[in-house]
Amino acid sequence: MHKAGWALVLTVLLATPAPGHAAATGVIFQVSTNSPATWKVAVHNVRNLERATGMPGNRIEVVVFSRAARMLLKDSPVAPNLDALHASGVTIEACKASIRKVGLKLSTILPFVRYVPSGVAEIVRRERQGWAYVRP
Amino acid sequence: MHKAGWALVLTVLLATPAPGHAAATGVIFQVSTNSPATWKVAVHNVRNLERATGMPGNRIEVVVFSRAARMLLKDSPVAPNLDALHASGVTIEACKASIRKVGLKLSTILPFVRYVPSGVAEIVRRERQGWAYVRP
Amino acid sequence: MHKAGWALVLTVLLATPAPGHAAATGVIFQVSTNSPATWKVAVHNVRNLERATGMPGNRIEVVVFSRAARMLLKDSPVAPNLDALHASGVTIEACKASIRKVGLKLSTILPFVRYVPSGVAEIVRRERQGWAYVRP
Repeated sequence: MHKAGWALVLTVLLATPAPGHAAATGVIFQVSTNSPATWKVAVHNVRNLERATGMPGNRIEVVVFSRAARMLLKDSPVAPNLDALHASGVTIEACKASIRKVGLKLSTILPFVRYVPSGVAEIVRRERQGWAYVRP
Repeated sequence: MHKAGWALVLTVLLATPAPGHAAATGVIFQVSTNSPATWKVAVHNVRNLERATGMPGNRIEVVVFSRAARMLLKDSPVAPNLDALHASGVTIEACKASIRKVGLKLSTILPFVRYVPSGVAEIVRRERQGWAYVRP
Repeated sequence: MHKAGWALVLTVLLATPAPGHAAATGVIFQVSTNSPATWKVAVHNVRNLERATGMPGNRIEVVVFSRAARMLLKDSPVAPNLDALHASGVTIEACKASIRKVGLKLSTILPFVRYVPSGVAEIVRRERQGWAYVRP
């Protein structure tokens, strides 16, 4: 086999999304209930994952939708926890559709929050990329 | 490398289930709680996914089991939503074991519901095929 | 192409974790709420999966964390169910961090429970190995 042939085979193999390939994938957490107790559990779960595995924050997303939208308010009971997660590189995401439905003003939401059109679509997108999904 | 050699390599590669291959996979939603509020969230989640991604309904399943069985009754508060989802091609599935356990008569259940022996087994089957799993 | 070349291509392909390869993967169940009703649903879900699919217990894990830690006490309402699952080969796992946080003594916990440093990290590890994830 020619050198160029092997190079192509290896390129295609390495480009295939492999569930076990930690370097290329991450973890997406879902928060969608209106229970502050569950919000607290979720932020602790993310922190524990970082501590237990040394996974860098920038491979972790927390996507917030449905009745959990208020979790992202500046005066939310978990605002300090979200601030710390964001400082460690974790992406905090809000579902735009849910924000509109709950009727929240963007000015009342934590400034580092990133917006996605649909929280569920973001979960599906990440799972298809091989990310692990956790629903605390 | 011979032409036949490359053809075999490519055939094997393309036959490998790839999480990112949208055309071949779908999304399975789980509904298993006895809370009508969660039933509503779930049906809205499915509708939002269709709207946000243009994913065809026939790549989406909603599997209902455990204490959510009553969600599938003809007089369920989400019956109109389930009807609309079904009209868009979404498969609505009931766990036979749960229907029996809750003691519901089949004649009281929405006519388009499909039955699976075990809701959890259906989730496992779909995840193994590379489908994304969402638990609202 | 040389024989050795093909052997290498096939070895790499076969080593790639494939989501559809039942023999090599399993199912991980999460229990993390403080609701005994959910604990019961979870243990019934596991039992139904075994019955419906004939999946051997040793391909199934139940990982318990957060506010579900008390589910693992010797006097838990689901202790007999956990005992039966363990007898069928299912691994019952406790998150050490959660056990510490809730303040439970190890001597009060069911003797067959296995400990993992982080329940969430165990879920992520298994999903990356291609295991299906179910959150009852």
